[in-house]
Amino acid sequence: MLVVVALGGNALLRRGEPMTAGNQRANIVRAASVLAKLVDEGHSIVVTHGNGPQVGLLALQAAATSDGRTFPLDVLGAESAGMIGYVIEQELGNLLKDRLFATLLTQVKVDPQDPAFAHPTKPIGPVYDEATARSLANERGWQIAPDGDKWRRVVPSPKPLAILEASVISFLVERAVIVICTGGGGVPVIARDDGSLCGVEAVIDKDLASALLARQLQADMLLLLTDVDAVYVDYGTATARALRRVSPKELSGQNFPAGSMGPKVAAAIEFTEATGKPAAIGKLDDAVNIVKGERGTWFETSALPAPLEPAER
Amino acid sequence: MLVVVALGGNALLRRGEPMTAGNQRANIVRAASVLAKLVDEGHSIVVTHGNGPQVGLLALQAAATSDGRTFPLDVLGAESAGMIGYVIEQELGNLLKDRLFATLLTQVKVDPQDPAFAHPTKPIGPVYDEATARSLANERGWQIAPDGDKWRRVVPSPKPLAILEASVISFLVERAVIVICTGGGGVPVIARDDGSLCGVEAVIDKDLASALLARQLQADMLLLLTDVDAVYVDYGTATARALRRVSPKELSGQNFPAGSMGPKVAAAIEFTEATGKPAAIGKLDDAVNIVKGERGTWFETSALPAPLEPAER
Repeated sequence: MLVVVALGGNALLRRGEPMTAGNQRANIVRAASVLAKLVDEGHSIVVTHGNGPQVGLLALQAAATSDGRTFPLDVLGAESAGMIGYVIEQELGNLLKDRLFATLLTQVKVDPQDPAFAHPTKPIGPVYDEATARSLANERGWQIAPDGDKWRRVVPSPKPLAILEASVISFLVERAVIVICTGGGGVPVIARDDGSLCGVEAVIDKDLASALLARQLQADMLLLLTDVDAVYVDYGTATARALRRVSPKELSGQNFPAGSMGPKVAAAIEFTEATGKPAAIGKLDDAVNIVKGERGTWFETSALPAPLEPAER
Repeated sequence: MLVVVALGGNALLRRGEPMTAGNQRANIVRAASVLAKLVDEGHSIVVTHGNGPQVGLLALQAAATSDGRTFPLDVLGAESAGMIGYVIEQELGNLLKDRLFATLLTQVKVDPQDPAFAHPTKPIGPVYDEATARSLANERGWQIAPDGDKWRRVVPSPKPLAILEASVISFLVERAVIVICTGGGGVPVIARDDGSLCGVEAVIDKDLASALLARQLQADMLLLLTDVDAVYVDYGTATARALRRVSPKELSGQNFPAGSMGPKVAAAIEFTEATGKPAAIGKLDDAVNIVKGERGTWFETSALPAPLEPAER
């Protein structure tokens, strides 16, 4: 079975942990052990990952040099894909020594008229107290928004329309190469009138980009891994209830937090509705059991299908 | 004909230009127009590039954040490969709209006992006056060395032993994908006793890595592009003389500057001696004519071979 596996920012850096090279590697080692188990179960995997803490840090680093040089978010996104993808490839390769790997830069087309450009919502970088966030916003022209009881920089998050390297990724999957791509949701680009591409100042949601990638690759399943074991109704309240198997229709009308579970649910619904194939959301460490249908929240068009068996591919 | 084309740091950033995102893109646009002409001539190309100014800047940016976090050079190298490779892919794609592209992170195996680790020689980052360089060296534990009349940080540059993604790159070349890889010479890794890989604090010379890549891909030619039109004997003196066609044997005993032409000549000799196929060194803008044998310095095992014709591949 071909599974597109998206590693959430919270699967790569635990909440509250500082974004250091050492912490990042330690978390990637943990994620790699989970991914290796999926491969050992006989699945083909294509791995995507978030970059929120990383791209924010790179932006801060670029701004911290005294000569005021800044790097646009498309370039910073490509940097972060290189830095994270390399470590995933290396650590996963250390567990699967007889496999071939490719970490691929990925351009993702977005609409220049996407309303997200006027309404930035995607948090990047570290959290600040409100006063610090407001002062940084003034100084650097950032837009900021609350994130829990703290504040963060927010940037536009336009809808992904096409993964431009999808056919190259398919070639590699056909040759049994494990591909790491669409890092941080991919590098956002728009087409000019003459059809040429240019990068834009945005960060694409990696769950939506992963759903699109899974559609373009005709994957058998979309697996969104995070640090929460399932999608909950009334999360954080006394009536909280984990969802186990749901159809997209059952969830219409439910609201999930925009910064965390919202995009995951939207991505799972989009993939399942477009393809009739399953998507699932759950905890990194549960990945193997999620794919077996025993953990996490499964999204399916039918109500009670049989769990999927690993297939040769 | 399959040509591995290495873009020198000086082809990506003119000497003395500040390393900004805008300057980098402007130079890459110029390089892309040259690469597109090679493709228009019927050649398959695999593109590699330097990262000296970029990786140095990223290291400075990482050090400039107030919390003292540093990133090791393997991670910074992967970042720089992402940032430069993305822009090359995009700008070359804008000129060759019907072609497929892949920008691939590349790990390159080196020997942990390589003497380079005890004797850093590879300059990275900006140039400084001597006093500033000495003060930075004290403060940050850098090693520094003269570069012309200025000083720069130097890091170990071990010999590349194997491009670990070479077979993946071959798959893509077979499918007519234009691959951008081995950025900055690739990410240096060593094998531990159990065969697992880990990154090391070094920067691999991108010309030597490109020669190795060309050997592993069984390329027909190695093309090293810079901002000098040929290899010179007695460069910078009144008796300076450009070399047009040379065999590796003729050059034995000649010395070329370690920081610039030296590694290019060594890489060209290595490829030609190992494969019997030609290598050439010359100016970016002359690329098409260099491949035709009309410009630059050609390295060949035989004295006067016929110029190569473009072949289907």
